[in-house]
Order: sequence, then C-alpha cells, then structure tokens
Amino acid sequence: MEREHNLIPEDKLWKRFLYRVIYRSDTRLGKLFDVVLLVLILLSTAIIMMESIPKFDKKFHNYFVITEWIISIFFSAEYFLRIAVIKNKKNYIFSFFGIIDFLALVPFYLSFFFPITKYFLIFRMLRMLRVFRIFNLLDFMDDGYLIVRALKNSSRKIYIFLLFLIIFSVIVGSLMFMVEGGRSGFETIPQSIYWAVVTVTTVGYGDVSPITPMGKFFAVILMLAGYSIIAVPTGIVTAEMRSKRQNLEKVCERCGNEDIDDDARYCKQCGKKLA
Amino acid sequence: MEREHNLIPEDKLWKRFLYRVIYRSDTRLGKLFDVVLLVLILLSTAIIMMESIPKFDKKFHNYFVITEWIISIFFSAEYFLRIAVIKNKKNYIFSFFGIIDFLALVPFYLSFFFPITKYFLIFRMLRMLRVFRIFNLLDFMDDGYLIVRALKNSSRKIYIFLLFLIIFSVIVGSLMFMVEGGRSGFETIPQSIYWAVVTVTTVGYGDVSPITPMGKFFAVILMLAGYSIIAVPTGIVTAEMRSKRQNLEKVCERCGNEDIDDDARYCKQCGKKLA
Amino acid sequence: MEREHNLIPEDKLWKRFLYRVIYRSDTRLGKLFDVVLLVLILLSTAIIMMESIPKFDKKFHNYFVITEWIISIFFSAEYFLRIAVIKNKKNYIFSFFGIIDFLALVPFYLSFFFPITKYFLIFRMLRMLRVFRIFNLLDFMDDGYLIVRALKNSSRKIYIFLLFLIIFSVIVGSLMFMVEGGRSGFETIPQSIYWAVVTVTTVGYGDVSPITPMGKFFAVILMLAGYSIIAVPTGIVTAEMRSKRQNLEKVCERCGNEDIDDDARYCKQCGKKLA
Amino acid sequence: MEREHNLIPEDKLWKRFLYRVIYRSDTRLGKLFDVVLLVLILLSTAIIMMESIPKFDKKFHNYFVITEWIISIFFSAEYFLRIAVIKNKKNYIFSFFGIIDFLALVPFYLSFFFPITKYFLIFRMLRMLRVFRIFNLLDFMDDGYLIVRALKNSSRKIYIFLLFLIIFSVIVGSLMFMVEGGRSGFETIPQSIYWAVVTVTTVGYGDVSPITPMGKFFAVILMLAGYSIIAVPTGIVTAEMRSKRQNLEKVCERCGNEDIDDDARYCKQCGKKLA
Repeated sequence: MEREHNLIPEDKLWKRFLYRVIYRSDTRLGKLFDVVLLVLILLSTAIIMMESIPKFDKKFHNYFVITEWIISIFFSAEYFLRIAVIKNKKNYIFSFFGIIDFLALVPFYLSFFFPITKYFLIFRMLRMLRVFRIFNLLDFMDDGYLIVRALKNSSRKIYIFLLFLIIFSVIVGSLMFMVEGGRSGFETIPQSIYWAVVTVTTVGYGDVSPITPMGKFFAVILMLAGYSIIAVPTGIVTAEMRSKRQNLEKVCERCGNEDIDDDARYCKQCGKKLA
Repeated sequence: MEREHNLIPEDKLWKRFLYRVIYRSDTRLGKLFDVVLLVLILLSTAIIMMESIPKFDKKFHNYFVITEWIISIFFSAEYFLRIAVIKNKKNYIFSFFGIIDFLALVPFYLSFFFPITKYFLIFRMLRMLRVFRIFNLLDFMDDGYLIVRALKNSSRKIYIFLLFLIIFSVIVGSLMFMVEGGRSGFETIPQSIYWAVVTVTTVGYGDVSPITPMGKFFAVILMLAGYSIIAVPTGIVTAEMRSKRQNLEKVCERCGNEDIDDDARYCKQCGKKLA
Repeated sequence: MEREHNLIPEDKLWKRFLYRVIYRSDTRLGKLFDVVLLVLILLSTAIIMMESIPKFDKKFHNYFVITEWIISIFFSAEYFLRIAVIKNKKNYIFSFFGIIDFLALVPFYLSFFFPITKYFLIFRMLRMLRVFRIFNLLDFMDDGYLIVRALKNSSRKIYIFLLFLIIFSVIVGSLMFMVEGGRSGFETIPQSIYWAVVTVTTVGYGDVSPITPMGKFFAVILMLAGYSIIAVPTGIVTAEMRSKRQNLEKVCERCGNEDIDDDARYCKQCGKKLA
Repeated sequence: MEREHNLIPEDKLWKRFLYRVIYRSDTRLGKLFDVVLLVLILLSTAIIMMESIPKFDKKFHNYFVITEWIISIFFSAEYFLRIAVIKNKKNYIFSFFGIIDFLALVPFYLSFFFPITKYFLIFRMLRMLRVFRIFNLLDFMDDGYLIVRALKNSSRKIYIFLLFLIIFSVIVGSLMFMVEGGRSGFETIPQSIYWAVVTVTTVGYGDVSPITPMGKFFAVILMLAGYSIIAVPTGIVTAEMRSKRQNLEKVCERCGNEDIDDDARYCKQCGKKLA
C-alpha cells in the first residue's frame, strides 16, 4: 500500500478517519464526500460561465457572489483539511492536484487585496480537472487508464509526429508567404504558418484562405498531404491500443518478465510454462 | 423464441396471422407490409421537408395536408393494430419503437385541438428511426449489428474520452476568453467553449476565430492537440472491431493456439480438430 | 484466359495484332499505345480546364478548338478500332469503360448539330477515369487492388454506416430547424440537414452556423458525436485491411478452402497440412 | 560501418577529429556542436519570422541584419568544414542535407550582388529541415524511424489513394462547375476542383460553398463520401504500423507459431527455445 505511510499514527483516530473520507472512497461517507465535491465543482464552473455573460451577471450578480463565497470557503476548508490529515504534507501540496487546488483558491483571496479582473478569476476553472480525480476514486477509470496508457506509450512517437507537423507547417507557411506575396491573411510569416496549421489539421476556419491560383494550387497539395498524414497518429495510437491484449496481471515466476500476451502459455523470455 | 409468449392463444387465429405479418417478415405478406411502411415513412419525411420550404408549401399546401391525413390514419391504424395483436401490450407500448410510434402521431392529433406551429410538427420526423427496425427485419443488419456491438463494447471508453474532451474544451475555452479578452466571438465563456469544440473537432466554421497573435498561437496548439487526439476514438473502435472475427473462447487443446477464427474447424497451426 | 474468347479467329492476324496492342500491354507497342493514351487524356483534361477560364479561352480559343478536334478524332478512331478488333462487341460496348468512352465522345459529335453549352462539354472529363484502366494495364495496381478489395469487402458495413449517418443528419437537421427557428441558414429543413452534414463530417464551411445559444449547444453535441463517429468507418476499413494478411495464392488441396491466413500451416476447414 | 570510407587517412588526425565532431555525436564535443547548431537554426528561423512582421522589422532591423550576418558566417564556415573533413566530398555535397545547407546559404551571398526581395530570403527557412538530422544524431529518432518506415512501406498504396482522390476531385469539381453554373466560387473548373479538394479533405474553408439546392445536394454526397474515404489512408498506415512489432521472419520450429515478438527468446505457445 503505497499510501499507508501517509497515514497519521494510530493515536489520532479522527485524523485517520478523515483521511479515509477525504482521500479515499471505500466508505459510504467517502463516496458522499466525493459526490458533494463533484456537485460543488460543477456548480462553481456553471457560475463562472454565467458570470461571463453580461445579461446574467447584471441580474444575478449578488447571488453569484454569495454562492462563490460559500463554495470558496468550502474548498478552502477542504484544502486545509487535506493538508492536516495527511502525514507527509508535501506529498499532497506539491502533487498535481494539490497545486490545482491551490491555484483555484488564489484568485478568491487575492481579490480581497487587489481589484482583480474577471479574466484572472477563471483560474478557478482549473477545478474542473479535479473531476478526473473523483472519477478515478469512484472506479470509473479502468477504461480511462487504458486510454492514458496507450497515449503514454505512444507519446514519444506522437511528439516526433507533432515536431514533424510543426516543421512542415513552418516551411509550407513560409512558402505560402512567398507565393501569396503578403496578401490579406498572409501578411507575415507567423500568419502564414497559422494558416498552414489551420489547413493541415483540416480545421479550415476560412478566416485566411488562398486567393491567387498559385496559392490555391499549393493549398490543394497541402490539404491532400494533411489528409494522408492524419493517418499517422491514428496508426500509432491504434497499434498501441491493440497491444493492450497483454495480460496485465500475469508475471513470469521465474524471470519476472511482465510483457506477457493474453494468449501466451510460455514465457517468451525464459521459456517457463505460465500458470 | 423470446417473442413467442407475445402471441395470442390459438383460438384467435387472425390475431396470430396479423402478428406475424406486422411484427415479423418471414412471410410474403410480412415483407410487403415492411416495404409499404418503408415507402410511407420516406413519403412522410419528404412531405415534412417540402412543407418547410415556403415556395413548395404555398403551391402544394393542400396536397401535403391531404397526404399527411392519409399517412397519419395509416400509422394510427398500424399503431392500434400493433397493440391489438400482441399479447403483452406493455412490451410494445413502452419499447423504444413503441414510444417513437406514439410521439410521431401526437402532433397530428393535438393539431385538432390546438394551433400547432410547424416546428412542433417535425416530431413526425422521428419516424425515420423506424427505418432501422425495418432493415433489421429484412436481414440487412448483420453487418450493422457488428458495428453496434463494437460501439457498445467501447462505449465506456468513448464516454470517458468525450468527458475528457469536454473538460479540455471548457478549460481551453476559458483560457481563450482570457487571452482574446472578450473580443468578437469570445465575449462570454460559453461562446469561447463553443469555439474550442468547433476547433478541437476540426469542424472549424470560422464564425469565431482568434484575432490576436496570442490567441492564434493558442489556437495552433489546440489544433495540433485535436489532430493528435482524434486518433483516440479511432484506436478504441478499431481495436474493438478487430476482436470480433476471432472466437475468443476457443483454444486448440494440442498446441494452445488461441488465434482461432469463428468458422474454423481445425487448428491452423497444428491441424488438430477443434472441439 | 478469360479474354481469349474475345479474339478474332486466326485467319485475321492483323486484328489479332491490334487487339493485343489496344487491349493489353504485354508488348512494346501496347505499352506505347497506353502511354500515348495517358498523355492525350491528360492533355484533353488540361484543355477542358483552361477553356473554362475566360482569360485563357479568349486568348487561345482557336488552339483549344483545333487540339480538341485532333484529340476527338483520335479517340473516335480508338473507339471504333476497339469495337472492330474484339470478337464479342457487347463485351466492350456495355462495359464500364466502353460506356465512359462513348459518353466522352458524345458532346463532340452533338456539337455539330446543336449549339452546346460549355457545361455539357465537361462530359469529356469522364475520360479521366480511364487513367485507372491504363494504370491497371501497366501493373501499377497491385496495391490499388488491395485497397479496392478492402473497400468492397467492407462496402455493406459502410453503406449501413452512411445510412445511419444520413438518418442521424436528417433528425438532427430537423431538430436544429426547430431550435434555430428558421433563422439565417436554417430557413428550411433541407437547409438544416445540409448544415448537419457539413458539421458531422467536420467539413464546417461556416456558410451556415448556429446563432442562438441553444443552437450552439446542440451544435456542440453534434460535433462531439461526429468526432466519435468518424472512428467507425476507419475501424471498418482498418479491420478489413488487416485481413489481407491472408495468403491470396494458397488454396487447400483437399477441400478447396481459399480463406487461408498467411501463418496457417493446416487448413482450418479440413485439417489438411498445407504445402 | 558504411561511413568509415568517408574518413580522411590516419595522418590527418585533426580532420579525423573534426569529422567526428561534425558528422557524429558520440563525443561530448560532437553533442555540443549539435546543440549549438540546433540553437542557431531556431534563432535563424525566429529572426526570419520576425523580419516578416513590419512592426518588429522597423524597430529591430539592424539587430536582425547583424545577427543574420553572424549566423550566415557560422553556417558558411560549417558548410566548408563539412566539405573539408569528409573524404568523398560528393557524398555530402549532393546528399539531401548538403543541398539544403547550400540552398539556405545562397540568398545571403546573392544579396551582396542583387537587391533581393524578402520573399526570396525565406529559402533560409529550409534550414529547419536540419532539425531532423540533429535529432537523428542525438538518438531521438528510433520511434521516428518506425513512423518513416511505416510511411515508406505504404507509400505506393498512399500514392494510388492520392491519385484516386485527385481524379475523384477533378470529376466532382467539373460536375459542380456544371451544376452551380459558374456562380461565385465556381467560375472556372480549376476553382471548382479547388472547392472539391477543400470539401473532400474536410478542410472546409467556406470561401467557396454551394449556393443552389442542387449544388448543396451534391456537396452533401461529396462530404459523406469524403468522410468514408478518410478511413482508407488510416487503414493503410495502421495495418503497416502493426506489422512492425513482430519478427516477421522467425517461426517456431516445433509448433509453427509465427506470432513471435522481436524480443522473444522462447516460443510463447510451446516454450521451445528460438534459434
């Protein structure tokens, strides 16, 4: 149990109890806590969204402010409780979600001292990321884990693919800057690169599009290339997804090999018959 | 025969006969009934479409109304016949297609008592869904079933993927709201989220597109991310599609080969007859 | 040799010779003939394109007309020669490429009797399809054949998928017609369906895009759905492509089974050891 | 060692030393040299981009010119050193990267003799391609190599696919030219083909989009086709990607199992030690 050493010693039973409720979800109260968190996160997100709409903000401004106060106080309490009940404080504070929790609270407290623009307030939006954590606890994420693992395993290939795509877009963008000769939308090289990415990813806003026949000709080539290139990340992830058919639980008793296919009867590393 | 207990007892032979014609398609009359249904559904859909075009509606309004009357009467008769000839009425009434059939008739009957807008009338469009049912009966759907099964098997993974995509879009959208500072198209957070989804799915209407260099820079990152992410659902479904053709339970007793096709009678590796 | 019975009897050796040159490419002259055809097809296509550009047409109109005359005469001669040297005339005349050849010549001859609009003249563009035939003859198409076979094998699944996509678009389009209430771009149901297809296929012209918040909300759902659905045809074709790993040449000697995987050592149908 | 014969004979040790630093990265100095190159390439690219933005160019024009001088002198020195230290000069000069290096230097030197437009100067952008070379040396490219190999292996199929796509677009474009009758965006056939490619690749700028109902109808068919066709390149590359992980030549002698991973030492089916 990796987490056990995060526990407070026996004598502080209430801390141990709170730890279990807050950090885990194997008790009824723990599950309830997670559901309450989930509801508050969604509520918080909904309010931030509605505040950004002038029509709603004018009408319900006070309600929004009050609800935010309540939510912020709850999340502050939760943040300090999380720190209090864990033994190794740093484990939480500098964890991914610890930093998220902290950042989401900052704008609320800073707003007491400084006038803070509404743009800064959307830091609270980061709270949405915690949804993943809750889902993780509630055992929704077995399948999600497989996706993440497939992405992780193919991340190097995807980085190289993106690097290629970026260099490709830079060169094509520069070429189009030359071809379209600084026409509307192609005034600068970065603008042309923006267009190249919009095109090669098949997004195609149309805010920038070639006007000269020459430019259209190159655009056609770029689109056909992009249409073929899109197969690459798909091929990478699909190949990786398929390798899931490994049996994740089997380990070779003799040599410790963990890379065991579902259909293997003998260890491919040492030849031992698998149980 | 799961459906047998839906039959009316022997003494009411005409009900038994009608049941077979209406619910099945293993008789000539049953097949004819399905084809008539198909034609009327397509006709009904075509009329609803043309009614929505002022030019046609002005010219042929009366023809449309009369045809609709006839079609509605036919479908009403069919609806009540379906209820009459089935033993367990609830099996039909609360089934997916029972509800569709009911909803598609409602606007016609309500229009006698209330003035109903043309918008409400398109509930009849739901009838289109019945095309699947007819195709199912006519044995067109073996392949369709494989698609549905692959989608069902991977639905959990796809939900998680969509959840991720939504949270990703919400955060990116909020970020762009901050970056583009309420400029045209990014006035509110929901608007910005709309843009983020339009971009990450590579739809790219262009009704909203970044204007500031900073905004364009983030848009480029979002597009490249979206271009890589699109590989994920493809990988999921492809992996699922593949695992269908093999018989996942059979193993060759002699050599342990598990790569056994559904239609195999002998092991392709060692020639052993399969049980 | 399926084609042998198309040959003219021995006594007409020149016909036999021409047949070989025109219909095959296993002689030097046959290959040359194919290359000449290819060049003329590309030239013909280029001229049709340039004729449609007023600037070029004004300048070079006469040159275009003369070149077209020459090309048309050549293709006419080729068409009649093809008929002359084949034994079973219908085999060619009513074949796919026979009809293409005929249709491509029609506008040229009709233009003597009727004033023909330039729109009609592009029938000659169909000639482009013959490029495939020539490539086929020149043995470029081994890989092409694999693609075509994979598409053919999965065509039923793809039809069902397209049927689903169409019904989905019709219903979503009608819904949007209701939601956007006849606003710009959503004035009629067919218009709304057009928008739905533009969106779900991620083309996203932006000539029609939702304006109301409700409409945008539904559009977002449609886009996310389309983004997940795109995985389906990919999954279908990929699964089919993979099954190419069958050995196309091996047949079981005993039972005639042709569905033999590359790695099979025994026939999976009768258990016979494969040579 | 393919490269060994490029070495200068023993007596010129400093050349041998420089060769190792410049052409390889198995020494500390060699790695440093590559990192310096990488930084200068990125700096060069950044300057070219910023020069194209009038606002920056006005402010920092002199700084840009000076930095470019320094960079160009460095790359010139590097170019001549590369030629000097290699035995078989042609091996470098006419290699892909040799030509790139040369082309990237040309505009700098030509600008002494001729007034050169800023458009021509972006030839220096080609330098970006060298990033791949450096990554290759720094052993980042194992995964990249796999991608390239999969693309190379499927290149014939992709060419045929692109040929099909182009012919398809030409015919569909011509058809739309006929249907939309020279309306805005469809004035010429090449314009219509441009639209067809924009549509079938799902880029969908929206700078050209069908206006007549007939045109929209054909556009819908084209989009649905494009949506199905996109599966083909994906299927091709995915099928190719997968076949990499297995050792395609090894077979288990005892049981004939051919599904043998590259790193396997024992057959996973029967436990036999592999040769």
